[in-house]
Amino acid sequence: MTEATPEAPARRPEHPIALSPELIRDITLALHEARPADAAALAAELHVADQADLLEQLDREDRAALVTASRDRLDPELLTYLDETVRGQVLELLSPEELGAALAQLETDDAIEVISDLDEAEQMALLAALPLPERSAVEQGLTYPEDSAGRLMQRDLVAAPEFWTVGQTIDYLRAHPDLPDDFYDIYIVNPRFEPVGSIPVSKVLRSKRGVLLTELTLKELHLIPVDLDQEEVGFLFRQYSLVSAPVVDRGRLVGVITVDDVVEVIEEEAEEDILRLGGVQETDLFASPPRTSLRRFPWLLVNLFTAVLASLVIAQFEGQIGQVVALAVLMPIVASMGGNAGTQTLTVVVRALAVREVTAANALRVLRKEALAAAFNGLLFLAVGLSLVVVWFGSPLLGLLFGAALVINVIAGALAGVLIPVLLDHFGLDPAVASGVFLTTVTDVIGFFAFLGLAALYLF
Amino acid sequence: MTEATPEAPARRPEHPIALSPELIRDITLALHEARPADAAALAAELHVADQADLLEQLDREDRAALVTASRDRLDPELLTYLDETVRGQVLELLSPEELGAALAQLETDDAIEVISDLDEAEQMALLAALPLPERSAVEQGLTYPEDSAGRLMQRDLVAAPEFWTVGQTIDYLRAHPDLPDDFYDIYIVNPRFEPVGSIPVSKVLRSKRGVLLTELTLKELHLIPVDLDQEEVGFLFRQYSLVSAPVVDRGRLVGVITVDDVVEVIEEEAEEDILRLGGVQETDLFASPPRTSLRRFPWLLVNLFTAVLASLVIAQFEGQIGQVVALAVLMPIVASMGGNAGTQTLTVVVRALAVREVTAANALRVLRKEALAAAFNGLLFLAVGLSLVVVWFGSPLLGLLFGAALVINVIAGALAGVLIPVLLDHFGLDPAVASGVFLTTVTDVIGFFAFLGLAALYLF
Repeated sequence: MTEATPEAPARRPEHPIALSPELIRDITLALHEARPADAAALAAELHVADQADLLEQLDREDRAALVTASRDRLDPELLTYLDETVRGQVLELLSPEELGAALAQLETDDAIEVISDLDEAEQMALLAALPLPERSAVEQGLTYPEDSAGRLMQRDLVAAPEFWTVGQTIDYLRAHPDLPDDFYDIYIVNPRFEPVGSIPVSKVLRSKRGVLLTELTLKELHLIPVDLDQEEVGFLFRQYSLVSAPVVDRGRLVGVITVDDVVEVIEEEAEEDILRLGGVQETDLFASPPRTSLRRFPWLLVNLFTAVLASLVIAQFEGQIGQVVALAVLMPIVASMGGNAGTQTLTVVVRALAVREVTAANALRVLRKEALAAAFNGLLFLAVGLSLVVVWFGSPLLGLLFGAALVINVIAGALAGVLIPVLLDHFGLDPAVASGVFLTTVTDVIGFFAFLGLAALYLF
Repeated sequence: MTEATPEAPARRPEHPIALSPELIRDITLALHEARPADAAALAAELHVADQADLLEQLDREDRAALVTASRDRLDPELLTYLDETVRGQVLELLSPEELGAALAQLETDDAIEVISDLDEAEQMALLAALPLPERSAVEQGLTYPEDSAGRLMQRDLVAAPEFWTVGQTIDYLRAHPDLPDDFYDIYIVNPRFEPVGSIPVSKVLRSKRGVLLTELTLKELHLIPVDLDQEEVGFLFRQYSLVSAPVVDRGRLVGVITVDDVVEVIEEEAEEDILRLGGVQETDLFASPPRTSLRRFPWLLVNLFTAVLASLVIAQFEGQIGQVVALAVLMPIVASMGGNAGTQTLTVVVRALAVREVTAANALRVLRKEALAAAFNGLLFLAVGLSLVVVWFGSPLLGLLFGAALVINVIAGALAGVLIPVLLDHFGLDPAVASGVFLTTVTDVIGFFAFLGLAALYLF
């Protein structure tokens, strides 16, 4: 075996062809030269996850051409790897029969994920095309709230009664080929099918046949209620380093969530925070331009109103600005410094709220600490700002007023950076959503008011 | 069993006491009333992960008092759950012997994580206090680069030669109590100890004793080179939905990474993106105010220079602003709208680069799409802006210039929002680090220049 190269080293053994820009170019070329079968053959050699990436990278027509050429050998798993927008386009290309056949091959939780994006009429048509057992499992899954533990869990699990031995358990497993292929834990249940313990499979494997399961049972059970929000599920897995956890509905064991399902959730939740801090509701990379525009417009409109608010402050000092235009030159710096210092604090606090490092117990201490840190920085910038203005405009007084406004606004930014997300969180709102706009409104208004107000008081 | 309440539902069965604000209050009170033993007794009932959260929420003196009172029953695992700053404080409270004893009980990868934060002298002292086998394992681990697969992996793994049967494997596992407690896969190795396949434990458990391992072997191996960056490891796990993967050093099997180790990495990488977009290098929530101030100062200084750049543009139009002060009132709105529209695009693109949805193959298409979406939004804001200025200042001409500047700056923001992170990424730099500052520099400069420039051309 030769040493792996830095690019895509781990794919080699399984997938001789990795998804490279060159491969994408070759496939696109084949599609444009009306050789769709060649394109499909190249794509088929990729791992299904890379096939999904490939489809996302192609433009809409190429995507449709490739899916159509590949329809006979499409791996149903592909659907679970696709971005929502792209998946919608792929689903439209398949007939209801093809879709039904594909969904029937997926695990229940994956099938539910695919179906839940569709509108009700499409859902009905698809459900009708599913074989009965899958259909009822999917229908039941759809009754759980979106983003709940019930949607994440797998229903297939291995449970054993308390009085079994290791030998009985192994015999049972060997005799039932319909059990899940791959599982990490065996759940011990009481006669009411309530989980009372769990045993890692490796522990069963290493024990003698005569040993009672209850002698092995680990009591460390973190029960997940079926309607728990996925964000909470992610928190529990992360907090307690869980690998799998039983899902219960009124105490009864109904499913199991494993950490690989939760990786996606944790990633999604972090992504949500990033996007919301940036003023975007959800990723719209593959959405059309008008759709993208419409999704982002409301947020920009809110920003316009808050920017007007800041401009109203400036308008109060029109007379002074008309006399000393240097004020107009310097004021955006004051606003910008407060906004950036505040954003630093805000980012740390939003993140800390998400991982629960900031709570009611230490919010005040965080506020005090951030205010102090901002005061230190403010004083440093008082010196820098004063020097800047003296050099630029030759006025120590203007420099002092500029520096003082910097101090005030950097501290205001830090206070707002703590208070805004903590208060939003306290009232049950997502601290990532509106924090940024509120913060810059505060730092713009206070920045302009402090600088122009000080100037009006001491410069005229 | 009663139904779980919404708060901390899953902790009930194991931990009758969950970490609540009330509990934190009780423990703080006990510490302040000089009843440290009571505080320690309350804390001891918590899960070790919650104990870590508790310590993070206390202030520095209370933290020291509680650790000192709990030192005899401190679970070594606690160290792995603590934030870096807090962990440093806790380590200082323990004697080298206590620390050595604690580290010896941790898994190698956890011990390495704790030790790697210390300075060299402390590392030496600690290593000397470790029993020899642990010591050499930790020393070897420290030779791998920080944030590499070698640091993430566990060395304890279960490997079997190709020619074994299920029965031989089970007998071997039962006869060797020193094998890892919990594992998901058995790796099949050739005589050079190179992994050639893996079998989920559940599959071994369900197969008859006479079956050859090679009949069960799943060929789907994603080999991870020992020096691969953890971000790449996270990507592979996420991309291919891996549960565990073998780590190889020049082809030989040296360890295994499981998905629960990767959850932390994925979370860390997402956190890094969030923080860097906010202008913070790493979370400093528990750092002291002067330290926090010093860490954040450089970034604010960069921002000051870029803000001055924008102000230099304004200074070119001092004459016009002195005559029409409305220009000074309206210009921050133009800059702010471009900045926010650009930030929306930037956020989506930085995220898409992180999960590799934007690559060289589709960057141009994304640029075109974002420019189009921005043009749509720009036209909407042309209408809104025009109306606003007509109502406020009664000047359709000024309104038209303001609206035109909005269109220009919103489009400029979108273009910069794609180009800046894509170019940074292309040159091997982290697109999250400096993008925000570059972006607002572009939108401030272009916003002020477009608005004031248009005004200078058509208003005078």
